[in-house]
Amino acid sequence: VEEEGGSSTQLTTKAAGSGAVYETLLVTKEDNITTITLNRPAKKNAITTGMYNEIIAALEQAAKDESVIAVFTGAGDFYCSGNDLTNFSKIQDGGVQEAARRGGDLLRKYVKAYIDFPKLLVAVVNGPAVGVSVTVLGLFDLVYATERATFHTPFSQLGQSAEGCSSYTFPKIMGAAKASEMLLFNKKLTAVQACELGLVTEVFPDSSFQSEVWARLKAYAKLPHNSLTLSKQLIRSGEKERLHAVNNAEVELLVERWTSDECLTAIMSFFQGKAKL
Amino acid sequence: VEEEGGSSTQLTTKAAGSGAVYETLLVTKEDNITTITLNRPAKKNAITTGMYNEIIAALEQAAKDESVIAVFTGAGDFYCSGNDLTNFSKIQDGGVQEAARRGGDLLRKYVKAYIDFPKLLVAVVNGPAVGVSVTVLGLFDLVYATERATFHTPFSQLGQSAEGCSSYTFPKIMGAAKASEMLLFNKKLTAVQACELGLVTEVFPDSSFQSEVWARLKAYAKLPHNSLTLSKQLIRSGEKERLHAVNNAEVELLVERWTSDECLTAIMSFFQGKAKL
Amino acid sequence: VEEEGGSSTQLTTKAAGSGAVYETLLVTKEDNITTITLNRPAKKNAITTGMYNEIIAALEQAAKDESVIAVFTGAGDFYCSGNDLTNFSKIQDGGVQEAARRGGDLLRKYVKAYIDFPKLLVAVVNGPAVGVSVTVLGLFDLVYATERATFHTPFSQLGQSAEGCSSYTFPKIMGAAKASEMLLFNKKLTAVQACELGLVTEVFPDSSFQSEVWARLKAYAKLPHNSLTLSKQLIRSGEKERLHAVNNAEVELLVERWTSDECLTAIMSFFQGKAKL
Repeated sequence: VEEEGGSSTQLTTKAAGSGAVYETLLVTKEDNITTITLNRPAKKNAITTGMYNEIIAALEQAAKDESVIAVFTGAGDFYCSGNDLTNFSKIQDGGVQEAARRGGDLLRKYVKAYIDFPKLLVAVVNGPAVGVSVTVLGLFDLVYATERATFHTPFSQLGQSAEGCSSYTFPKIMGAAKASEMLLFNKKLTAVQACELGLVTEVFPDSSFQSEVWARLKAYAKLPHNSLTLSKQLIRSGEKERLHAVNNAEVELLVERWTSDECLTAIMSFFQGKAKL
Repeated sequence: VEEEGGSSTQLTTKAAGSGAVYETLLVTKEDNITTITLNRPAKKNAITTGMYNEIIAALEQAAKDESVIAVFTGAGDFYCSGNDLTNFSKIQDGGVQEAARRGGDLLRKYVKAYIDFPKLLVAVVNGPAVGVSVTVLGLFDLVYATERATFHTPFSQLGQSAEGCSSYTFPKIMGAAKASEMLLFNKKLTAVQACELGLVTEVFPDSSFQSEVWARLKAYAKLPHNSLTLSKQLIRSGEKERLHAVNNAEVELLVERWTSDECLTAIMSFFQGKAKL
Repeated sequence: VEEEGGSSTQLTTKAAGSGAVYETLLVTKEDNITTITLNRPAKKNAITTGMYNEIIAALEQAAKDESVIAVFTGAGDFYCSGNDLTNFSKIQDGGVQEAARRGGDLLRKYVKAYIDFPKLLVAVVNGPAVGVSVTVLGLFDLVYATERATFHTPFSQLGQSAEGCSSYTFPKIMGAAKASEMLLFNKKLTAVQACELGLVTEVFPDSSFQSEVWARLKAYAKLPHNSLTLSKQLIRSGEKERLHAVNNAEVELLVERWTSDECLTAIMSFFQGKAKL
């Protein structure tokens, strides 16, 4: 959840071996691992409309290539500050209703890309994570976090509602009594708390985070590939249909929320600096 | 699980702003919060037949009014000692079979009222909780407990079986290996243990319990109302049908249990002071 | 996961009161408890083809007799080292394809015996547990472990995939982010870690493990029997159909794995001492 200002400054990069060019991501392929780095550090890696589309494209690319693990991480000190709220301020043709519908279609497609991703999905959470970057973590196979990371989903504060299948995955992972604190009452978790609740696999000291995590991932990527991929698909196959239904229901409610006075007032307050998350 | 003796002594109260009069509850509405206080402190708030009906009525009332959160708590030192076992000793027309059938109908309707409750449901567990007051906690959105609280479901000891959808919610929240200890083997949990297992959201020192919890709830009740209510419904919608089926299956088994020699013998022993829970 | 060498040395025993004779198990019945002891201590209780069939028979026997609890434990220092890999080296008629098909049929029948077992199922984990002896624990009602116990499912390392319904029960119990470490990345858990994740009910000091656990189980076996059995069935009834479907899907994938070059190469390396689990 980040306000955009000025022009973006990150470099346009060409992903090694993929041919794809991204404006908001750094995508590298090495040791059978595709690494997708959210690359808008000046904006705490807030996700713009263009960035949603680039992430979808990067996942499609990783699904097809020879890699066995796809890793998400963030450039700079933040992992990701969530949906870029300037997405709401760029409403043009058709007004709020049409913008909400288009936003819903994009979000549905975005979350679907995670649900359908056929290979191992790993988050290397290098700093604070907010909103949709937190909620999709329930669809990841491993979530490694630095001790500096935090996990925050301030939906009701902004008059919105949960997405990323978190309305289903979070109660499944941690029980409703814990999930409600996050999804309904905006509680920000430390990395250790998120690990105790099962949202995070393991927490590392910040000083050794990168070296420990990458040593482990490189070793994992050498395990029998088909065994890894087919096992992941087996584990997820039983709830895939359910996840798509949850994604649809979440987006339907969010589209309603985005056009509600309650939500518009809350977001307006945020932009005017009256509200602090 | 409490034996009744003597007449009840609590005052009949008129709920502020609701018009409803309750004999066994105190119902207040303030700051967009409906508070339902179980009010038979001399009987450790054991739930009589009349009290089941009053709670159902209070939930129906709270669903319709302008409040955004419904809170359950107990008067005195206990939260609730569960089903008042004198409900079993008042068998009249039709004998045991008919009493069991009527008891089952009431229980099904009671649990259904929690499943269908459309707003936020919070338990402020101010002391020991037993039986059905524990099992329905899986249907709550937040469960705050004083460190003095305990959680005890001694069903098999009384020849009975789990209700309140706990046969589904408890394994979901804490896994079967932990849920069995409670639901099959009568293990009494401390508040801290219940919190570690995900049944309780947070535990507070007894000295600051009321002030800390109510400060938090009052702040929560100021969040965008539709966002809270619709998000809760979203989270619960995916398993509502399942919960109703579980409720029906649980009640069906309990009705069989209530008419079994095994159960009647166990309850007889309890009344004769031979058995201690 | 154990290599077999030499002939087995344990005695053939006749189960007290059952009439059944087992070569690889010790089966006793006392205090309403059927105890099934895996009895190939020289081979760390690795499960051979014959032993799978004997366990299925012992479960069928326990389902029919007057006992109320069935307990699994291991003779010697190990609980169970999992599937005896010499099962793979005894391929005869029909070659690899036919051996894989037969192995799949046996495994499906084996796991089905746990899913359908109608009484309480308790694991007394007296030492390290590996592979299928770990994965079926998600189907147990109680899992007691000595502090010396470990829990290890090195499937991907051997080019294989998860079974015992663990692809469903483990993510349900501990969340996908924790389950993946075990099922995909071969992480070995200590007893305390497995308890924190909900796979284990309680951990005991090794010195008092047997006395504490058996005192508890004997007390449990005196609780009203029908109440225990019917309550267990109630808790499991809602997911029984799902568990059978999971078992089938897991076996289907494993049969494919067993005939893959990837798996055959990994197992060959293990036998040649090149790979260490």
